[in-house]
Amino acid sequence: MPGTKVKAENVQRDFELQAAAALALTVAYRGDNFSGFARQDGRVTIQGELEEALATVLRRPVLIQGAGRTDAGVHALGQVVSCGVSEAELQQQNFAGLQTALNALLPAGIVIKGIEAKEPNFSARFSAQAREYRYRLYPSPTPPLFLAPYVWWVPPVGLESVAALKSAARLFEGEQDFKSFCVAKTADRLAAQGLSTHRNLLHVHVFGAQHLGEQCLIIQVIGNAFLHSMVRIMVGSLVEVLLGRRAPEWISAALAACQRQSAGPTAPAQGLTLWRVRY
Amino acid sequence: MPGTKVKAENVQRDFELQAAAALALTVAYRGDNFSGFARQDGRVTIQGELEEALATVLRRPVLIQGAGRTDAGVHALGQVVSCGVSEAELQQQNFAGLQTALNALLPAGIVIKGIEAKEPNFSARFSAQAREYRYRLYPSPTPPLFLAPYVWWVPPVGLESVAALKSAARLFEGEQDFKSFCVAKTADRLAAQGLSTHRNLLHVHVFGAQHLGEQCLIIQVIGNAFLHSMVRIMVGSLVEVLLGRRAPEWISAALAACQRQSAGPTAPAQGLTLWRVRY
Repeated sequence: MPGTKVKAENVQRDFELQAAAALALTVAYRGDNFSGFARQDGRVTIQGELEEALATVLRRPVLIQGAGRTDAGVHALGQVVSCGVSEAELQQQNFAGLQTALNALLPAGIVIKGIEAKEPNFSARFSAQAREYRYRLYPSPTPPLFLAPYVWWVPPVGLESVAALKSAARLFEGEQDFKSFCVAKTADRLAAQGLSTHRNLLHVHVFGAQHLGEQCLIIQVIGNAFLHSMVRIMVGSLVEVLLGRRAPEWISAALAACQRQSAGPTAPAQGLTLWRVRY
Repeated sequence: MPGTKVKAENVQRDFELQAAAALALTVAYRGDNFSGFARQDGRVTIQGELEEALATVLRRPVLIQGAGRTDAGVHALGQVVSCGVSEAELQQQNFAGLQTALNALLPAGIVIKGIEAKEPNFSARFSAQAREYRYRLYPSPTPPLFLAPYVWWVPPVGLESVAALKSAARLFEGEQDFKSFCVAKTADRLAAQGLSTHRNLLHVHVFGAQHLGEQCLIIQVIGNAFLHSMVRIMVGSLVEVLLGRRAPEWISAALAACQRQSAGPTAPAQGLTLWRVRY
């Protein structure tokens, strides 16, 4: 109902003008239960479910901002969303009670892990200093069991392949143009708007970890901000190196090319988790 | 069909008499997808699914033995099952090919992790030296997300409570009568048959572990053999101590009482995993 939405946005603007504080909610979710983060008419989305639960508790329309617009299938452990609240709402609400009420209202697959009050101009999206994503590979001759919804199953690899992956990953670090590692349509739109496709990756690191008895390779990526599908295209390219189809230096060439077709395929969503947001 | 079963058992007996070797299969499964390990008419069980897949590949009826008869809902990472094979079957089969074929035939939620040939008199059940179970508690104010199918969610606890849990767990170690920690009906049946309810626990240990970003307490139990529901009643009792409802020494009193009602409740199946079997 577009009418309702316009109304919600008006109410939201009013709240932002007179907000006494912002609420920052740390949210975990299973991406496979939802059509992505961003609200879409007629689809079950993280933003839609969170706004509905908040609206029920606060008894008014609520619009939230999220630190990362995760795609369908992408999980989150530490997504952060924010909304403005009035002085009266801040006084009325006991945060532990609010959290319990929201968790009771939300569907299975979304959990509010914590709630904090922030200064009124805090925005989960624009105040974020850094975002951390983790991608889980499961290199094994047999399929994953307990981790099936949370990993990308790839063929088994030796120690030399892991060493190649590690050195390739480091080539993504620093301030660079990631145009090759962005959905082509989005890159074109950004270019048309005169916006940069440069991003600054602070840390790209590979390590092994056992979860529930199944051994994974984790690709940890920390950056100031990310382009559309950037981590998944990075991982898809790194797996080309892991499987010996490309040398590690090919990553540098793919970055320099500044065109989507020079990079590798997009890794499946289910292996990716928005791990943490730093403010 | 009882007729078919009798035939299968006859064929099996023939195979055991003339078995050139035994196959030992290491099997992982999600307990929540099945009605337990043991074959039951009209139910989807681990044993039933494994025997059907093996029968399809070997083109004859197959009966297997398992190291642990896990209840409905209990998971396994390293369950071991065995069956006899003839010299001709041993020659025909390439183990990697057999494993791939079985994994393709088995339903989602069961994975063959490995296959080994053993001496003909090997039995996954009777040759086992020790079995290791792990139980995962999730002490937290908010519900588990990624780990929801694999943990028991309990209230958050402090360090002193964890210390009490650790000292209580140690009281289970050694050769003792576990009659209080066994389903009462089973204990009565064993007593009527003149069988012992003594078992020898080699190691009962508590440690913290983070899986998929969620912090758990793991209760690790290694023993020669286990009574029906023994680990789950041990964990249900230990959680009484963890939550401060009982002192650690109560565990010794519950062991000494030799009656089911002296121990705590049975912990839910979903937190339990048959982790490993040693031969």
